[in-house]
Amino acid sequence: VLVLAGGASNRFWPLLDKPLLRFGDQTLLERHLRSLEALGVERFVVVVRPETRQAVQALADGLGLRQSRVVVQAQARGMADAVLSAREALVGAEDAPIYVTQAQDVFDPILHTAMFQRWHQGAAADGLIAAVRVSEYFPGGYLKLEGNRITGVVEKPGASKEPSDLVTLVAHLFASTHRLVEAIEAQAPIPGLDDAYERALSGLMVSGSFRHLVYEGRWQALKFPWHVLDVMDLLLERWTAGQESPGPDYEQREDGVFVGRNVRIFPGAHVVAPALIGHDAIIGHNALVRGSLVGENSVVGFGSEVARSYLGRHVELHHNYVGDSVFGEGSSMGYGAVTANFRLDGRTVPSLVGGERVDTGRMKLGLILGAGARVGVNASTMPGVKMGAGAILGPNLRLARDLADGQRHLSERAGGNP
Amino acid sequence: VLVLAGGASNRFWPLLDKPLLRFGDQTLLERHLRSLEALGVERFVVVVRPETRQAVQALADGLGLRQSRVVVQAQARGMADAVLSAREALVGAEDAPIYVTQAQDVFDPILHTAMFQRWHQGAAADGLIAAVRVSEYFPGGYLKLEGNRITGVVEKPGASKEPSDLVTLVAHLFASTHRLVEAIEAQAPIPGLDDAYERALSGLMVSGSFRHLVYEGRWQALKFPWHVLDVMDLLLERWTAGQESPGPDYEQREDGVFVGRNVRIFPGAHVVAPALIGHDAIIGHNALVRGSLVGENSVVGFGSEVARSYLGRHVELHHNYVGDSVFGEGSSMGYGAVTANFRLDGRTVPSLVGGERVDTGRMKLGLILGAGARVGVNASTMPGVKMGAGAILGPNLRLARDLADGQRHLSERAGGNP
Amino acid sequence: VLVLAGGASNRFWPLLDKPLLRFGDQTLLERHLRSLEALGVERFVVVVRPETRQAVQALADGLGLRQSRVVVQAQARGMADAVLSAREALVGAEDAPIYVTQAQDVFDPILHTAMFQRWHQGAAADGLIAAVRVSEYFPGGYLKLEGNRITGVVEKPGASKEPSDLVTLVAHLFASTHRLVEAIEAQAPIPGLDDAYERALSGLMVSGSFRHLVYEGRWQALKFPWHVLDVMDLLLERWTAGQESPGPDYEQREDGVFVGRNVRIFPGAHVVAPALIGHDAIIGHNALVRGSLVGENSVVGFGSEVARSYLGRHVELHHNYVGDSVFGEGSSMGYGAVTANFRLDGRTVPSLVGGERVDTGRMKLGLILGAGARVGVNASTMPGVKMGAGAILGPNLRLARDLADGQRHLSERAGGNP
Repeated sequence: VLVLAGGASNRFWPLLDKPLLRFGDQTLLERHLRSLEALGVERFVVVVRPETRQAVQALADGLGLRQSRVVVQAQARGMADAVLSAREALVGAEDAPIYVTQAQDVFDPILHTAMFQRWHQGAAADGLIAAVRVSEYFPGGYLKLEGNRITGVVEKPGASKEPSDLVTLVAHLFASTHRLVEAIEAQAPIPGLDDAYERALSGLMVSGSFRHLVYEGRWQALKFPWHVLDVMDLLLERWTAGQESPGPDYEQREDGVFVGRNVRIFPGAHVVAPALIGHDAIIGHNALVRGSLVGENSVVGFGSEVARSYLGRHVELHHNYVGDSVFGEGSSMGYGAVTANFRLDGRTVPSLVGGERVDTGRMKLGLILGAGARVGVNASTMPGVKMGAGAILGPNLRLARDLADGQRHLSERAGGNP
Repeated sequence: VLVLAGGASNRFWPLLDKPLLRFGDQTLLERHLRSLEALGVERFVVVVRPETRQAVQALADGLGLRQSRVVVQAQARGMADAVLSAREALVGAEDAPIYVTQAQDVFDPILHTAMFQRWHQGAAADGLIAAVRVSEYFPGGYLKLEGNRITGVVEKPGASKEPSDLVTLVAHLFASTHRLVEAIEAQAPIPGLDDAYERALSGLMVSGSFRHLVYEGRWQALKFPWHVLDVMDLLLERWTAGQESPGPDYEQREDGVFVGRNVRIFPGAHVVAPALIGHDAIIGHNALVRGSLVGENSVVGFGSEVARSYLGRHVELHHNYVGDSVFGEGSSMGYGAVTANFRLDGRTVPSLVGGERVDTGRMKLGLILGAGARVGVNASTMPGVKMGAGAILGPNLRLARDLADGQRHLSERAGGNP
Repeated sequence: VLVLAGGASNRFWPLLDKPLLRFGDQTLLERHLRSLEALGVERFVVVVRPETRQAVQALADGLGLRQSRVVVQAQARGMADAVLSAREALVGAEDAPIYVTQAQDVFDPILHTAMFQRWHQGAAADGLIAAVRVSEYFPGGYLKLEGNRITGVVEKPGASKEPSDLVTLVAHLFASTHRLVEAIEAQAPIPGLDDAYERALSGLMVSGSFRHLVYEGRWQALKFPWHVLDVMDLLLERWTAGQESPGPDYEQREDGVFVGRNVRIFPGAHVVAPALIGHDAIIGHNALVRGSLVGENSVVGFGSEVARSYLGRHVELHHNYVGDSVFGEGSSMGYGAVTANFRLDGRTVPSLVGGERVDTGRMKLGLILGAGARVGVNASTMPGVKMGAGAILGPNLRLARDLADGQRHLSERAGGNP
């Protein structure tokens, strides 16, 4: 199995390392590897960013995946480059089948079971591609079919130009590793485009026999930072339904809330399911947590409200409202600071991504707070705003635009709120 | 019975439609009509503004007042015009007595009982006027008496120039409908003055035999918007004492609080009597409501405090302090917004009415919020401020002046706080 | 016993009258006098500022100290001047020993017991000086020793230049009152310096036989206003340990909290030990008090949090965060106002004292609020800021500098926050 876990995504800013994002005791990558390991997979190659190599290697060691290799993709240059980065690690397995997956996409593990079953049934000679059926346009790769045979993938064709209602997932089984690698190598690099993998895939489909498998479970890609909330919702739902566990040391209360080791919930505090309170976290007097995940060692101080939000580890709140927000590790808010999470005009919340305005499609979206970022007392952040790692917003200010990593906005005069 | 329920009062801005203001299950008009109906009155003529005709007609139909008529007063031009607007509806009853009342004045219904009893005792040949005894100057109409006979009404004579200590209420019984109408018709209109009714009344008093009845119960006129709080206090007191009921579907808890259908009061929330929580309203975790009326379908969100305030229907609060305030239907406040309700200098709170500064006489007065108006997160409103229907106050701002209907105050720069 | 209780200290601004600061039922002066009276002391001379003479006289009368005298030190000119101010009151006791102490320093009363015991054992012919052993440099007066004999006191020698590790406390026993007075009188005044007492003391040490006593208990001087918090901590600890009592009408709950007469603690409020709630105080719904002292008649309104703070009498809070702060009598905060109490840069909090920046050495320090000072709704004060008596901070503002007595900061424009 080839697991693509590299790629520093600008679109995910100010958050980092999607595969290393933690939910309960596991990172997404760990969850992914474990679910494949449980199906008998013994040999993994994990492609990572240089910055995360150590952490991922430690993870793989911890899982006891002895036949596995962690390889580094030097620069984030797309899937083709990621596969080629793994060439050396694939030596000796060139004739074996290869299963290409992505760690940050969250599925029901039943997807992998189904892929392997269908493969062993011999349904596909050269490749098997997972896909989901969509009812309205989604900007992904659409399957082109002739009967059961896939004849190509059309990337983002535009609404009403879709060749089918089937969008591919990154769960691709190939009969031959070396044929995949060679097909990629044959692609001439096109400056500014990183679609060599997709072109190679289409080439293989034309010459070989590819089939598809329709996945009908829930899934969630992690593309933009607010998708963390969707992944959280999905996992809270799976944990609550008993389909997965957040970890062996989490106890589920009668009301459905998951509570970790050494958690202290003070008198007058309310935690409403679905919710998970991480190990060693503190929920202060008269606080309210609902529909949220509170990371390990975090403090939800006196009178705070955390609604439908993801708090990383070591987050410190003190009488704040955190709604529909994602807070990175070690970030904090001073007393009375608040994340506004819906627009007075009642529209869906937009957010700037790489300088461009993206409609998040969400009626409610609060703040995306990078690691170690801090918000001063009685400050307010407007819906969909993002603050980079280590950024600081001063007391009593209103923030209506993004702050870059390390940027400080300390007074209204120096300001420039639009 | 002629019920005057028209007149769009500028002084009541930003609130509208005094007679249609709801307390519990009833509007003031409904309460008024019901209390008269209970005394055997069968024929009503209700004079309304064009805008409220439909609502009032529906109300009258709902009450089953078949012999009643709802008539429209095209423009708000005073009581004389209101009576004349009803002329056609009074056809056939010209020789019967007529009882002129106003829907927005709140009395103990015993007033009407006493008026009818005294009338039937034949105490007054031509007219009977209700009055209250005042101990200090009040800007109303004062009775001029010769023995028991009323010889006239002096409007706002000024302090120490009062002809008596009796101020008239709008509860006037006349022996003859056509004589009242004719007396009004005989008044020449004086541009800029709408006192034709009062002049006609004085004329009738000179020529006929008018008596008065002293009402000793509590009463409250609804003139300025903050009077809504006084009416609320009066009704909460009457409900609590069992003298009236807020409606058949309200249950009174042991501690005296009235709770409507499908109300949800979350853990940690406190409701302290006297108080009424309207049907389908939500009182969130750790909120506090005291001495207040929460309208139907309103949400008093997490950690909010509502003290001595009137909230209309569909109001949404989220961790606010609302003190001594009146919130119109569908208005809302973002997290942390607060209504300051007393002055740092310890004086009574003034308020602008039609451009003029009026002393409200209240040590504590918060915000008057028009229908659909919205206040941003962490914003503050200064004592006695008013926001028009649909007005918006931006986040983290301080509002020290009134906002017109639909006006937006979104940044300090564009501001102009005095 | 001569008790020095005068000296208006600029360093203590905006607070006043250290010896009259109340903790539980007692002022520091009362506590001091009572602890000495319990040891059999019958004759006190208390030196006070003109402004506090009446209060101290009433206190002495209340204690039934008939042989005691309250004398006024006209101007704050140091210890020598204070002793000389008491000359007349010392007439008739010139040949008796004299014990010089200071009311605002807080010790375990065992210090006085030990001083008297050692004295009666005849350990010192001419004088006995209390001292504490320090492990790192402290800017006080250091003992110079030859064997057991004290040969002098070196004031603030500077780090690594200390003649010993013993710092003097103001607890000095002299064999002869008139010799102390004469030694002081013999000192020529040096303009700008008020060290005549120290010079006299050194002179006596050279000519006579002085010994020292090492005090090993806890002690706390009251020099800067934030020291009120240290004194509070010390006394809360002593009360909790049963070593002293805050007063006969305080009841200690099972959880250790001291609660005065007629205290009302509303539902949902939490008081966490160590803490004292003064007589007639109110702790509102859903409030939290911990590690704090709430003065008599104070109101900790709905949803407030008071952490590690000293509130004087008649303080009014309403949904505030008061952390590591000292609030003078009659001061108040509007809803949502907050005392920020640690720096975003994680450094110790500085404070301006007499125009100079002093490092308080505290990681957490909030607001020092003078008597009657007021803070508007949703305002914030930065760590270590002080507001003078009667000063006012307007709504929604951030205060990053001190306000003088009576000064008003009402709008950002007029501002000048650094």
